[in-house]
Amino acid sequence: MHRKAQTAVPIHPLLAERWSSRAFSDDPVAPELVLSLLEAARWSASCFNGQPWRFIVATRDDPEQHARLAACFTTSNQRWVPRAWVVMIALAVDTFEVDGSANRLAQYDVGLAVQNMVVQASAHGLNVRQAAGIDIARIRAEYAVPEGVTVMCGVMIGYPGDPDTLVDPLPQRERQPRTRKPLSELCFSGRFGQAYDGLPDETR
Amino acid sequence: MHRKAQTAVPIHPLLAERWSSRAFSDDPVAPELVLSLLEAARWSASCFNGQPWRFIVATRDDPEQHARLAACFTTSNQRWVPRAWVVMIALAVDTFEVDGSANRLAQYDVGLAVQNMVVQASAHGLNVRQAAGIDIARIRAEYAVPEGVTVMCGVMIGYPGDPDTLVDPLPQRERQPRTRKPLSELCFSGRFGQAYDGLPDETR
Repeated sequence: MHRKAQTAVPIHPLLAERWSSRAFSDDPVAPELVLSLLEAARWSASCFNGQPWRFIVATRDDPEQHARLAACFTTSNQRWVPRAWVVMIALAVDTFEVDGSANRLAQYDVGLAVQNMVVQASAHGLNVRQAAGIDIARIRAEYAVPEGVTVMCGVMIGYPGDPDTLVDPLPQRERQPRTRKPLSELCFSGRFGQAYDGLPDETR
Repeated sequence: MHRKAQTAVPIHPLLAERWSSRAFSDDPVAPELVLSLLEAARWSASCFNGQPWRFIVATRDDPEQHARLAACFTTSNQRWVPRAWVVMIALAVDTFEVDGSANRLAQYDVGLAVQNMVVQASAHGLNVRQAAGIDIARIRAEYAVPEGVTVMCGVMIGYPGDPDTLVDPLPQRERQPRTRKPLSELCFSGRFGQAYDGLPDETR
């Protein structure tokens, strides 16, 4: 199923065709592909090459660890996290190793790395669904996350499934057009909030 | 010049061949390509589709606005920001529009969007250099950035230049191999800090 982004100018198919489905198939993701996802994240850019990203990883190759990590997602995510072949928690190291000073771009840099992973996943035909709905206290306790590390986001990855396996009204929702704010509300010239003057009319 | 990442398993060329050069050429970036960069960011995923990313944008098509934005970068970045055809500041809206509640993933989501932009830039053969070294107070004042919006990162984009136009020792540094922590320090199983058990020996 394709839900290609409706863009004013073409963007790369890996970006245009990506979307966050809730439907995962039970097809296994090969360990080498899991490794390529982690490598993609690893080679992201970061502030002073601080590499503040960390990942707790479990796959259905190890059902016990997978269930343990999936249980750290909130109730609403329990509708899909058990099927996602790969489950991760993305974390951010809050300070620079070199001098212990605060890294104000740590969370931003983790976003850079996860998006690299998402692009790599898309190149393999995998679906990625990120989830804010995770039990942060439970993750901290269960995985002994130290102070100075922020638990950011859950990440579910697997081959796309059949939306009709989801309960109503999700099958319909999975087929609705994707929506975004117009570029004129996101990109500015001269002052914050003033639409970028390079935008053609059809993007406003 | 290629500085392809040395990965344990292959990753997509758009990710493997990306790196943050300091050398920009004076070749103009076509307005349509600038638009594709913004579109790529726009179509990123975000928590509850909150789309917290905002961008202040200037290009050398408008030298006055470009110089005004470039002047918000710190001294060390003045060695390259004037040549970068496209200069941006990425910002994060701290709260959800729908109810004004704090968006704990706002900065992370801006990272996702900027990385989408980086991938799109790579697809056009453009170089992207992000910079923490920006004058946040000056940006807030000069561009009237409202409270509730966090200034994140500077972004310089342009066609790659000749590293030998940089001052010593930068030409050499631009040619050094890129380095990253091993996956075993980034990816964990069972508990934070314990290397992911799916990692082959050569990644440790």
